[in-house]
Amino acid sequence: MPRSPDVLVIGGGVIGLAIARRVAQRGGRVTVIERGVPGHEASWAAAGMLAPQCESDTIDPFFDLCRASLGLYPAFAHALRDEAGMEIEYRVDGTLYPALDDREQKTLEQRYQRQREAGLPVVRLTAKEARTIEPNLSNRVQMALSFPDDHQVDNRKLAQALVVAARRAGVDVREGVTITRILTDGDRVIGAVTKTEEWHPDVVVNAAGCWASVLNGLPPGACPPIRPIRGQMLSLDVSASPPFRRVIYSHRSYLVPRADGRLLIGATVEEAGFKKQVTVGGILKLFKGALDLAPSLREYPVESTWSGLRPASPDRLPVLGPAALDGLILATGHYRNGILLAPITGELISDVITTGDIPPMMRPFLPGRFERV
Amino acid sequence: MPRSPDVLVIGGGVIGLAIARRVAQRGGRVTVIERGVPGHEASWAAAGMLAPQCESDTIDPFFDLCRASLGLYPAFAHALRDEAGMEIEYRVDGTLYPALDDREQKTLEQRYQRQREAGLPVVRLTAKEARTIEPNLSNRVQMALSFPDDHQVDNRKLAQALVVAARRAGVDVREGVTITRILTDGDRVIGAVTKTEEWHPDVVVNAAGCWASVLNGLPPGACPPIRPIRGQMLSLDVSASPPFRRVIYSHRSYLVPRADGRLLIGATVEEAGFKKQVTVGGILKLFKGALDLAPSLREYPVESTWSGLRPASPDRLPVLGPAALDGLILATGHYRNGILLAPITGELISDVITTGDIPPMMRPFLPGRFERV
Repeated sequence: MPRSPDVLVIGGGVIGLAIARRVAQRGGRVTVIERGVPGHEASWAAAGMLAPQCESDTIDPFFDLCRASLGLYPAFAHALRDEAGMEIEYRVDGTLYPALDDREQKTLEQRYQRQREAGLPVVRLTAKEARTIEPNLSNRVQMALSFPDDHQVDNRKLAQALVVAARRAGVDVREGVTITRILTDGDRVIGAVTKTEEWHPDVVVNAAGCWASVLNGLPPGACPPIRPIRGQMLSLDVSASPPFRRVIYSHRSYLVPRADGRLLIGATVEEAGFKKQVTVGGILKLFKGALDLAPSLREYPVESTWSGLRPASPDRLPVLGPAALDGLILATGHYRNGILLAPITGELISDVITTGDIPPMMRPFLPGRFERV
Repeated sequence: MPRSPDVLVIGGGVIGLAIARRVAQRGGRVTVIERGVPGHEASWAAAGMLAPQCESDTIDPFFDLCRASLGLYPAFAHALRDEAGMEIEYRVDGTLYPALDDREQKTLEQRYQRQREAGLPVVRLTAKEARTIEPNLSNRVQMALSFPDDHQVDNRKLAQALVVAARRAGVDVREGVTITRILTDGDRVIGAVTKTEEWHPDVVVNAAGCWASVLNGLPPGACPPIRPIRGQMLSLDVSASPPFRRVIYSHRSYLVPRADGRLLIGATVEEAGFKKQVTVGGILKLFKGALDLAPSLREYPVESTWSGLRPASPDRLPVLGPAALDGLILATGHYRNGILLAPITGELISDVITTGDIPPMMRPFLPGRFERV
């Protein structure tokens, strides 16, 4: 039996890795168990938008959490560059959200008013202004909002950098290893078992994304109510003539230009169980949304298609903090915001583990809100 | 310098390979020079439909050529099984051509009359009959024609089998080798050069598909007027629940069920130079056509997408036989019919090479019809 680590993190996505890295940097002994390749599930499938203002109509604790995590990104990217020796392509070109019809315009005008009143940075652009800065936008654009603080990162590079940084901090990142059972003793989690090994850490962190609820050995009351919500995506090769500089957001499809000459188009939001597929209907939806925004995309070559499974809780908010069982901490349910929330999740969960206190910012997201009687 | 082969075939697609195999079987010494992997260009991109009746409204020499080649297929598939030890999945389930609107129905009714008058096997089905034998057809179907003699083959397996069979017959198939120059002496082709070798065969066969017209060293008068016409295709993974047994043909998209659980959807017909790309617009067109035929395809996963470049002459008919230069024979311009015409092309071109006579069936397709004054 190996020497027990202090902390066992189940799940090697950006959430599990960000937690492991911070706990290790604060002196903990950490093992990450990843069933496949670290960062190759939802973290890999994402688009890397760091854009809380694009979607928010209310200034609530979740928006504050997102903004706080966004605020950590410059230092986070800088630290990862030092620790991992690689760029995560953190880009601050901002995000543009165009309205293509009256209904969208009305939504955006209201969002503009609310965010202005809250003192958030947002700029209202006329159609002409929007098409001046992004000439490949459809001429159906009626107006647009520009969010200079809504940024992006290359999520695949982020995942890779976190693996290197976590290992550099002393984390034992195990690849291709599956937890077969969580061990409990009364109200306490006392360890976990794989095919060949057994761990007895002080703390188990369940950061298994959409698989968080299907770990063997968890009593029903300690199972986070997480479901997979499929997102299909695709990328175009636009290296010959990049059509956009900024992220173009919309509720139809969004367009994310990457430094490597790709343009990402995302994403569907579907209930499809654990079937990680790219379907005819999914691609059609993405194409339609993208061509509404930019008809000239029709001529570009398709580079790749893929899908991922977002971990979604019933209220679509993250599930963070101590579970019903002692010794078990949850960090899942990040839904569409896992990349954005990785830095703050790393900080908050490592705070709980190292101090035992619940940070105030975490309180609205505690697992207890779903506890079954 | 290597010993000169009797025949040098430029291009290792199904056309070049079928010719090489037959010439070698008839005693010739043959080398095939393929710039990439044999059979991995247009031969690979095709759908493998052997369906001359689906498209033909006139009984002309080209239709006769197609029917003659189709007639060779049972023996060809049998011979390749013996020679190469592999199945090319020659399937005789027939082809169904449904009409989804009045215009299509009118076209099909006329085709039915003409083919019946010509004594060809064709069956007229009511909408109900069509949907009884293929229940996943759209309920928009108004009627359909069934062509029991229009078959299919797995074109990729055909290409692979031809490589093995050609080698087994003694052909030297060179992969990853590019002809840098054709050598001429007055009105005669006397050889060809690669980076490291020089050949002086009795006959050079230009079977380079859409690249037939861009070989270095050919005087303009001997360059076949061939252009690339792009075809985009894709495949769905329908292994969980195969929706069709027969090939479903239409001018929108066609659907080709394969034994390995894939459903091919083809194909666009585009002028795009030598750009072998899959584009947003191309996929949209294929999807639209496929969903018109079978709305339930929307839920299936996409397996792969690809494109290929068809070699097209000005009249869209093949270019077969002696060129303006002595010692040069052309076998290109097969456009959308390269798989279907591979057996007959192998026979006809090997006849010319071994006997010196022009078979009557080849006369309408001689290169001379495009000769510039």
